[in-house]
Amino acid sequence: MTAEEPLTVQPRTRIVPQTVRGMRDHRPPAMILRHYVADTLRAVFERFGFDPLQTPAVEYAETLEGKYGEEADRLIYTFEDRGGRRVGLRYDLTVPLARVVAQYPDLPKPFKRYQIAPCWRAERPQRGRYREFVQCDVDIVGSASMLADAEVVTVACVAFQTLGFKHFTVRLNHRKVLAGLAEVLGLDPQTSAQVYRSVDKLDKIGPEGVRAELAERGLAPDLIDRLFEFFTLTGPSRDILTTLRERLQASAVGLEGIAELEALLDALAMSGVSPQFYRLDLSMVRGLEYYTGPIFEAVVEEPRIGSIAGGGRYDRLIGLFSGRDYPATGLSIGLDRVCDVIEELGLRPPDLRPTLVEALVTVFNSDLAPESIRLANELRAAGRRVSVYLGEDTLRAQLRYAHRLGVPYVLILGPDEMARQVVIVRDMATGAQTEVPRTAVATALPARAPGG
Amino acid sequence: MTAEEPLTVQPRTRIVPQTVRGMRDHRPPAMILRHYVADTLRAVFERFGFDPLQTPAVEYAETLEGKYGEEADRLIYTFEDRGGRRVGLRYDLTVPLARVVAQYPDLPKPFKRYQIAPCWRAERPQRGRYREFVQCDVDIVGSASMLADAEVVTVACVAFQTLGFKHFTVRLNHRKVLAGLAEVLGLDPQTSAQVYRSVDKLDKIGPEGVRAELAERGLAPDLIDRLFEFFTLTGPSRDILTTLRERLQASAVGLEGIAELEALLDALAMSGVSPQFYRLDLSMVRGLEYYTGPIFEAVVEEPRIGSIAGGGRYDRLIGLFSGRDYPATGLSIGLDRVCDVIEELGLRPPDLRPTLVEALVTVFNSDLAPESIRLANELRAAGRRVSVYLGEDTLRAQLRYAHRLGVPYVLILGPDEMARQVVIVRDMATGAQTEVPRTAVATALPARAPGG
Repeated sequence: MTAEEPLTVQPRTRIVPQTVRGMRDHRPPAMILRHYVADTLRAVFERFGFDPLQTPAVEYAETLEGKYGEEADRLIYTFEDRGGRRVGLRYDLTVPLARVVAQYPDLPKPFKRYQIAPCWRAERPQRGRYREFVQCDVDIVGSASMLADAEVVTVACVAFQTLGFKHFTVRLNHRKVLAGLAEVLGLDPQTSAQVYRSVDKLDKIGPEGVRAELAERGLAPDLIDRLFEFFTLTGPSRDILTTLRERLQASAVGLEGIAELEALLDALAMSGVSPQFYRLDLSMVRGLEYYTGPIFEAVVEEPRIGSIAGGGRYDRLIGLFSGRDYPATGLSIGLDRVCDVIEELGLRPPDLRPTLVEALVTVFNSDLAPESIRLANELRAAGRRVSVYLGEDTLRAQLRYAHRLGVPYVLILGPDEMARQVVIVRDMATGAQTEVPRTAVATALPARAPGG
Repeated sequence: MTAEEPLTVQPRTRIVPQTVRGMRDHRPPAMILRHYVADTLRAVFERFGFDPLQTPAVEYAETLEGKYGEEADRLIYTFEDRGGRRVGLRYDLTVPLARVVAQYPDLPKPFKRYQIAPCWRAERPQRGRYREFVQCDVDIVGSASMLADAEVVTVACVAFQTLGFKHFTVRLNHRKVLAGLAEVLGLDPQTSAQVYRSVDKLDKIGPEGVRAELAERGLAPDLIDRLFEFFTLTGPSRDILTTLRERLQASAVGLEGIAELEALLDALAMSGVSPQFYRLDLSMVRGLEYYTGPIFEAVVEEPRIGSIAGGGRYDRLIGLFSGRDYPATGLSIGLDRVCDVIEELGLRPPDLRPTLVEALVTVFNSDLAPESIRLANELRAAGRRVSVYLGEDTLRAQLRYAHRLGVPYVLILGPDEMARQVVIVRDMATGAQTEVPRTAVATALPARAPGG
């Protein structure tokens, strides 16, 4: 409540106006950025031949549960609906896609779809992590080729470059390489799952934290050392693969993973993505359980906001719904984190104002309101975004309103201007006022920048 | 499952792939129409000076409950979240807006926002009624002027005309006129609420059904007759107001409503909306409890799919959250119903295909994949929506895929074409194939229609 607003006493209990913890409102200045990012991603997705899909926010609980891993399952918002069904809010867009592919077997394959939609997770809210967040997903179902994996990685790289990102890296790894590594180190499946769960926290708790956790889980110090030899392999991706090929020689599954990573690097090379934007990183394991092949994670080095995209191949997920498996791969870009990065790095395009309104038409008095509305309608017909001031206030108050809103131009139309068939165009940045013939106002306003 | 797909037996229980009752998937052909409608509405909203807002899907239950009326309250999806909070899925976009206005008192007023977002209601699913549906709302907060009410009605009319609708009507009424009517007929508040709840079903159960319900509720036959005299008043809106002014002379609140409706008709006349698109209809009462002034409802006469938009003034809703009232008015367009009408009336623009992909580039074999990808990237750089075939199949299978997807053009690139630096452009509608120099493919594809 601002100080000058009088309080009207209400004969009822006031409900505290608040959002649920971890969920956010996006007011116009933030939404204008979110629209710009979502529109940019959508255009990139569409240029690469992805078609749009939308699925319901609410799914049967059994559709969602048991796909992501135990820890994740606890974060799904599940509840009973009015008909006593156990349902839940979608946790990601991949599992609903798997359900869709199984439910409509006549979708032409390869099925390439994008979906931009909110997901919900009951996580502890923290910087860059929200309980409602928008995922922007591209997936290709029905192709086992590494060309498909390379394509979704390429889409992400093109999207980030289109948004003006310069310092991002897509880390690449492969679940079969991780399985091969467990094999040659003699880890049983349960231990190896624990190991990878710890390693997944490397960014969060650092190498010492991971070592401590592994020791706590009973791993021998020399085993931990050998694990870290792998995780800390650096250098050109092809060199890492050469080293790996030697060390995982005894593991058939490991060698399969290496061959696929080689094919992925080949495919990325032909996709036109600069090699500076991707590299092999054996310590990147991704939390979700459903991945079976290559896995990807995009990070921006500065600010350290965590990953801005993640994905991988999940050749066994659709089979849970369909009775037969379909090869599938995909990648998810986090809209909220991308917007956070844009704000922190100052990448918001300068033509994105806090309001979409290009001009406010003032209303001199109620007798002249029809004239103001007519002028606004003429400009709207010319494609301009125009608001008419609908309060009943002084010109001074109307100008103050335009200033607070961030409108770049105010069009003033009083009896004097009416008589002379002119309009005063006030540039709010400079305060300069120009008299423009009534018929030339549309052309007097500067052209809108694309996306602006 | 199509017949030719072999079944892989899975060593686990298959989860039945299904959507929750009343919730729908929107596959690409449907989504492309939904995007066209949402993009059209968004552009109209923005031209009228509305800025975007987004609120969370999940609100505190106390934010949602007690605003819509008892019957509606039972349809809100409420549940306990992981922290034991009573929360619910939003039932509409108006109550969340009211919360937002109270929560951020420094939003400049008039605050004009649009929001396009799904809402959820546990209603019995039926034709045109879904449990998840997308509302497209424009609201103006902070103006008591009928110019504001006229503006949101105008926005809806312009939107429907832009979408190609020719036979729609916005019915207008006023809650104060209904209150005045109750007053002169001597109905106590409880009875009058019951009466209006019955009349709200006029479209559904017909006049005889409403009469029967009113009789059941104990209304005397002559009272029912007098009510129907009002509800069935027809003719020019101004004439109805003249009749009303005589009959409601004894009711101060009724006369207030009449004066506002007159001002609303004046404002609509200056907005440029053709009078064929709106008319007074005293039998239109709107179900929701929070309305306090003019109410609106847009219907398409054919097909009889119910209302496609509704709204009104709610000057007392924000006060429930804020401790002070703000005048506010708005209107909500139902995206799902608008799409249903477009499909039923055949108003889908012919350039909206079942896929956004303009051209599919075939892959001759894996050795030539890099060339196909390079060609696709060149076309994408020129702004075209291009897919590369990522399976490993014969040309025949790739053409069949393009046909099933509905792609208009296929670009064929084999060793022979490679050698001669040409591409074969196949028009999928006619089967005609043209040889085009490699560098001229982008210009050989017909320009995309706007929105196509």
